[in-house]
Amino acid sequence: MAPDDVKHVVIVGAGFGGLEVARHLAETNLRITIIDQRNHHLFQPLLYQVATASLATSEIAWPVRSLLRTYKTVTTLLGTVVGVNADAKTVLLEDGEAIVFDILVLATGAQHAYFGHDEWEPYAPGLKTIEDATAIRRKILSAFERAEREPDPAERAKLLTFVIVGGGPTGVELAGTIAELARDTLRNDFRNIDTRSARVVLVEAGPRLLAGFRESLSAYAQQALTRLGVEVRLQQPVTNCTADGVVIGSENLAAKTILWAAGVAASPAARWLQAAADRAGRIMVQPDLTVAGHPNIFAIGDTAHVTTAEKTPVPGIAPAAKQEGRYVAETIKARLRGGPTLPPFRYKDAGSLATIGKRAAVVDFGWIKLTGRLAWWLWGLAHIYFLIGVRHRLTVALSWLWIYVTGQRSARLITQGRTAPARDKTQA
Amino acid sequence: MAPDDVKHVVIVGAGFGGLEVARHLAETNLRITIIDQRNHHLFQPLLYQVATASLATSEIAWPVRSLLRTYKTVTTLLGTVVGVNADAKTVLLEDGEAIVFDILVLATGAQHAYFGHDEWEPYAPGLKTIEDATAIRRKILSAFERAEREPDPAERAKLLTFVIVGGGPTGVELAGTIAELARDTLRNDFRNIDTRSARVVLVEAGPRLLAGFRESLSAYAQQALTRLGVEVRLQQPVTNCTADGVVIGSENLAAKTILWAAGVAASPAARWLQAAADRAGRIMVQPDLTVAGHPNIFAIGDTAHVTTAEKTPVPGIAPAAKQEGRYVAETIKARLRGGPTLPPFRYKDAGSLATIGKRAAVVDFGWIKLTGRLAWWLWGLAHIYFLIGVRHRLTVALSWLWIYVTGQRSARLITQGRTAPARDKTQA
Repeated sequence: MAPDDVKHVVIVGAGFGGLEVARHLAETNLRITIIDQRNHHLFQPLLYQVATASLATSEIAWPVRSLLRTYKTVTTLLGTVVGVNADAKTVLLEDGEAIVFDILVLATGAQHAYFGHDEWEPYAPGLKTIEDATAIRRKILSAFERAEREPDPAERAKLLTFVIVGGGPTGVELAGTIAELARDTLRNDFRNIDTRSARVVLVEAGPRLLAGFRESLSAYAQQALTRLGVEVRLQQPVTNCTADGVVIGSENLAAKTILWAAGVAASPAARWLQAAADRAGRIMVQPDLTVAGHPNIFAIGDTAHVTTAEKTPVPGIAPAAKQEGRYVAETIKARLRGGPTLPPFRYKDAGSLATIGKRAAVVDFGWIKLTGRLAWWLWGLAHIYFLIGVRHRLTVALSWLWIYVTGQRSARLITQGRTAPARDKTQA
Repeated sequence: MAPDDVKHVVIVGAGFGGLEVARHLAETNLRITIIDQRNHHLFQPLLYQVATASLATSEIAWPVRSLLRTYKTVTTLLGTVVGVNADAKTVLLEDGEAIVFDILVLATGAQHAYFGHDEWEPYAPGLKTIEDATAIRRKILSAFERAEREPDPAERAKLLTFVIVGGGPTGVELAGTIAELARDTLRNDFRNIDTRSARVVLVEAGPRLLAGFRESLSAYAQQALTRLGVEVRLQQPVTNCTADGVVIGSENLAAKTILWAAGVAASPAARWLQAAADRAGRIMVQPDLTVAGHPNIFAIGDTAHVTTAEKTPVPGIAPAAKQEGRYVAETIKARLRGGPTLPPFRYKDAGSLATIGKRAAVVDFGWIKLTGRLAWWLWGLAHIYFLIGVRHRLTVALSWLWIYVTGQRSARLITQGRTAPARDKTQA
């Protein structure tokens, strides 16, 4: 093991932020441990493509320890952190183990939230993990399968109605892709139903889609979705979700598939430290991304509430988490050197991208905005560029090219749910 | 719907046999319905590669209705058959629906069997479905993860011991690939354990591995496995499986991972018809593959006990199921034409192949036998050739090339088990 005078940096969470810290500290003489409750890093920006059968799970998720294999100072642990003891400087794992740290980086991410309506979750699943994505894929594909066998027209219509709650990038991307699935991919596969009659409804409580983008791009996205056959409903808050549909204001909308893309909440890291947090549970960090009163504990990514120079919150997207991770690594290095402290963290907006089906996208770089096919190709190239590893770039490029040319999606697997028996049902 | 004088052929099971029947009847004026309890056709010969993290699930499983989309006379139903009423000529679905047939083809396949020891299943899972494969993948990868965190050397050794029961092609392929995972793929990924110290034990009750191959090939397979570091144990029947290992004769072998590749049993189709069956539950079919007393009901593939010209049973492999499926389709066509009945079914042995890791294989074509690298390349080409669809041929070829060149396996995902919560555990 390492000598006692080697400082131990513990990173909780192997998302975009956590990995960036590990990578930028790897060449120092620090001892680094990265802990995640899953064995894989997830490329969340493309998770909706798994949910809509365009990509396979292994195309967007990679073993953490494989990503970090060449960094011999970094140890990867599969474990679930359930608390932090700031006085004892330990991180507590679910199985009772306590890991001592000198410096702690909390990069535990977020998950979907129901604004006090957790009872909606069984009816309106959200999209944050690989399992969420395969569950949603199962739900969407099974709805078409059940519709094919449903004799009652009203029930059939309900099975062929898909409601997406939330008009941010995930909601827009889900709605566009489901519309394409119904209009294009599945068109020739069924005999009793016309999949093109499926109704895809995107419900947003605010006045426009893609609130983080410029208004002209929001308008473009709305037009592009409408052209794909998506019903866009603005300023219509959802007031209830049940097994039979959603209530929008006072209107009942019958639907067997409801997907939740309306909000996220941070992991409970703020509670571990009794730190001040915003409404979404994100820690109100100091300008150097440390937790107030704990100069050796950093919080980044969706775990942290950080503000831009314009006093608006830094968005919960991968580039922001990576910038914060890199800043924390540089800060730790500066301390190690005993040099001057770095200036406060400054978020550089690298632009926003969202795609609408396989023909259109919106790109907002600040200095330039793009729509349509050119934006779509740019979106595709950018995402392929950021995918980790040459191999995944190749297979994802191949998958997309295939969908683009043939309209077929290959990852259309209905795998068993958690409650279903794994063994063959016909075997009594 | 179709006019009344159009005959309705119902095929139960969309495996290799069932699909072949549907394809070869598609251009007739018959109405065809194919029913499967899963939405995907599974390329079972490569299932062990999903279990060992070499291929992604969607690389070897394809939506049935997508495979049959161009055959407009064929309807695909997702449903679980629970019985047959031969007098009423109906197939009974789990949800109560009854589907009337004129001609029925039972191609319901098989699953792993424990020879009267079903209580072993939780400790020694078998490999027949996509869910089996991801469960085994989770089990194997989690064992290494737990070993990395295990302080007790005895427990760690137990976690790093992998026992495969059954020395047929699946057992040989699993043992070889797990040995490579430990010796090669995972070698640099861990900090506290040396994955190369993992023990892989292949246990076979009979006198040699690959009993269906010639003896010289069995001997070669045994050598090749030994070279990979696999302990091969012959003539050693397993007498118990527990959470802590297996009992072989009177020896306790401590192991946290036990995989079952020792036997299969047919689906309960024989019971649906009270038909004569062999010990494995396969229907003893007539020379024309019909069920005795039911000239309009055929059974093929793993559902049927068919004998070769030499009176040995036709093996339960994909080429045999396809030949039987084609024969049934031709028989039905001959009846439709009112022509002479076909001569009895004759199995043509197209040869046997099995692979041992990524460098060696055995190929037995009867007139020629091959071992080593040449056999491995032949095995690879044959399997890529038989994969359905150009796209899957490309991606699987790419996956294998990648593993071959880099030793890395990309599908190393531990997805959640059925009992684990889908939501983030840190979110209290």
